[in-house]
Amino acid sequence: MNTEMEKGFAEVSGGVCAAKGFRAAGIHCGFRYSKEKKDLALIVSDSRCAAAAVYTQNKVKGAPIAVTRRNIADGYARAIICNSGNANTCAPGGEQLAEETCRITAEVLGTEQEDIVVCSTGVIGEKMTIEPFAKGIPLIAKELNPFGSEDAAQAIMTTDTVSKSIAVEFDLNGTTCRIGGIAKGSGMIDPNMATMLSFITTDADIDPGLLQKALSQDILTSYNQICVDGDTSTNDMVVVLANGQAGNAGITEEGEAYQVFCGALSKVTRYLARQLARDGEGATKLIECNVSGAPDEGTARAVSKSVISSNLLKAAIFGSDANWGRVLCAIGYTPGDFSADHIDVVMRSAAGSVLVCQDSKHHPYSEAEASKILGEKEIAIDIEMHSGDAAATAWGCDLTYDYVRINGDYRS
Amino acid sequence: MNTEMEKGFAEVSGGVCAAKGFRAAGIHCGFRYSKEKKDLALIVSDSRCAAAAVYTQNKVKGAPIAVTRRNIADGYARAIICNSGNANTCAPGGEQLAEETCRITAEVLGTEQEDIVVCSTGVIGEKMTIEPFAKGIPLIAKELNPFGSEDAAQAIMTTDTVSKSIAVEFDLNGTTCRIGGIAKGSGMIDPNMATMLSFITTDADIDPGLLQKALSQDILTSYNQICVDGDTSTNDMVVVLANGQAGNAGITEEGEAYQVFCGALSKVTRYLARQLARDGEGATKLIECNVSGAPDEGTARAVSKSVISSNLLKAAIFGSDANWGRVLCAIGYTPGDFSADHIDVVMRSAAGSVLVCQDSKHHPYSEAEASKILGEKEIAIDIEMHSGDAAATAWGCDLTYDYVRINGDYRS
Repeated sequence: MNTEMEKGFAEVSGGVCAAKGFRAAGIHCGFRYSKEKKDLALIVSDSRCAAAAVYTQNKVKGAPIAVTRRNIADGYARAIICNSGNANTCAPGGEQLAEETCRITAEVLGTEQEDIVVCSTGVIGEKMTIEPFAKGIPLIAKELNPFGSEDAAQAIMTTDTVSKSIAVEFDLNGTTCRIGGIAKGSGMIDPNMATMLSFITTDADIDPGLLQKALSQDILTSYNQICVDGDTSTNDMVVVLANGQAGNAGITEEGEAYQVFCGALSKVTRYLARQLARDGEGATKLIECNVSGAPDEGTARAVSKSVISSNLLKAAIFGSDANWGRVLCAIGYTPGDFSADHIDVVMRSAAGSVLVCQDSKHHPYSEAEASKILGEKEIAIDIEMHSGDAAATAWGCDLTYDYVRINGDYRS
Repeated sequence: MNTEMEKGFAEVSGGVCAAKGFRAAGIHCGFRYSKEKKDLALIVSDSRCAAAAVYTQNKVKGAPIAVTRRNIADGYARAIICNSGNANTCAPGGEQLAEETCRITAEVLGTEQEDIVVCSTGVIGEKMTIEPFAKGIPLIAKELNPFGSEDAAQAIMTTDTVSKSIAVEFDLNGTTCRIGGIAKGSGMIDPNMATMLSFITTDADIDPGLLQKALSQDILTSYNQICVDGDTSTNDMVVVLANGQAGNAGITEEGEAYQVFCGALSKVTRYLARQLARDGEGATKLIECNVSGAPDEGTARAVSKSVISSNLLKAAIFGSDANWGRVLCAIGYTPGDFSADHIDVVMRSAAGSVLVCQDSKHHPYSEAEASKILGEKEIAIDIEMHSGDAAATAWGCDLTYDYVRINGDYRS
């Protein structure tokens, strides 16, 4: 099922510190009550980086987004500071506080305030104070080290049950480069042109404009194709920093090297997207929907996303019930002008596969076999639309009692 | 909270049999295993009726929809036959079976096959046979009676826990008319230009074209404003039959009488829509979202619907958690060009009301008081947008453990 890592990009350790010249750290500084829970992350490059970012399309935005947007406007940045526990959203004085956070970070690192990316994630609408930052930033700066990615990944977690991290090595015209990333997110996940928080670093040398283009294109098939609960967050952000320390000939046009870079970026983002879906709040199963034979890629993306977003299907997968009528229903209410009259549906996992619907009609199958297939932890739903050549994949998770428990009582 | 019944339309008993000349019945005929569960409903007018209908916008449609659409095309009908337990959707030979059902019904009633409305609701994709209809229709015809509305309402239920029914009396230029309806639906509810099944009867005399216009306009503020789980069904249908037996001067233009009729129709549909939301699968609470101060009615409808559709908010209401940040988040991701910068949010119930957000920022309140307010069975979320004069209401329900239980194992 995991088609993401098959095409020869070597996976390496180190997460956001895998690329040359990056250090990271994660500590507890006081945004959360439990001192066991890290709540401040810092990622720093030794040198200035080309920087690109995409942000939530929610009209209600976290205050840090406005500040980061201004700081990245020139195409460059050097460090990312991020707290968890409070989203700094819909709270008075949020923007000034995010600015002050950048000022302190820059001062401690000896760099420019305009080169700081600032992010927050956690509860919306609760007033934030500067004290945990003022106390924590000098401390976390001392902890920066080339093996700090995992601490940073843990520090940005909210309801996540596991940290998410990946790095790969790739070749640009004979120069070995690396790209790695971390991500957080478990609930309020239906990214729209952006995602939950994800920080990606690379030592490849690439023009800021091309880096932004690569990222903006990439998210259409990675973060924007996942859904946990249909709620697009106010604080989604993906940031990529590229410091050029690998020493490759700088990527300044959309040639072969750019395509290789985009491929490596895609490995990282699709892997992290998949991990986010797998760790959806309360999830026990990853659901991957592969659409093929669609009239165009937009339709393929929309149909696959519609299927993995259906509450009814998500609950059926939780119950290992091959209720394929809900797949057809979700295909049918996908916006757009396409035919749903000749759909085939296969349900598949490590335990086997079963054709449950052919030509949009019931296909005989064994319920016992289907139930066994759906009892696995990774479920694929393969949809052939028989109306073209386009394909796409989306990732989601099952809807469980624990989703309700977690979200019925998040703040307590 | 219930603003629906306040404006002087007198509620009367009788449901779809409240209007003159209508009879109904509901029996068990074999679509379901349990003989305790009625699974066939029949509603008949003594005389031919102006007929109007709206259907699901899902591209995958139940077979009965195609047949009903053809039969109603001339603007007239006399009877509605509906089974529960099998949706006759994505199953081979479905359309022929629906045609045959109409033929048998017409033969038994001594009327035209083209005057029969046929509907099915239940599991998608399972093959249906004609036998239960062939056996059941002659039996149910003998049971038809002027007090049969409740039996019919029970016979169309699937996962519904209560039947839904209402009737009101109104005056058209000195003539007393009645309009009443029944509805079913509990899961797979996010109507789009139509709804779950709802059958409405009236003895008012109204031109078929105007009846269709009234219905098409009405659903924008009734059935289309409810959501249980965001899944638009394949079989949604609302049908109105008007037999003219009240003897009013026929409504043939959009004058005062038409407006009165639309008002009465709205009482029935909004009441039934509210009942559908209240009985959402697994629901313990009704959530009503009232938006005011919106720039236009479309925005008001979209924002209110977005809020009651948010899984995160629904889970928070289940947990009596005044997590208003989720309200702001859902407002913010509503499509459209509007400002979310000056939002006030009040949470309200029989236990009181509390302002939780002012000018899109936290407003101090007592968590204990909020929790008490949200502990009630009917919760209102009042949103003032401060950007115009338009208003709208939407209805939903909380997201509970039982929703997951019911849908993890629907078919077993």
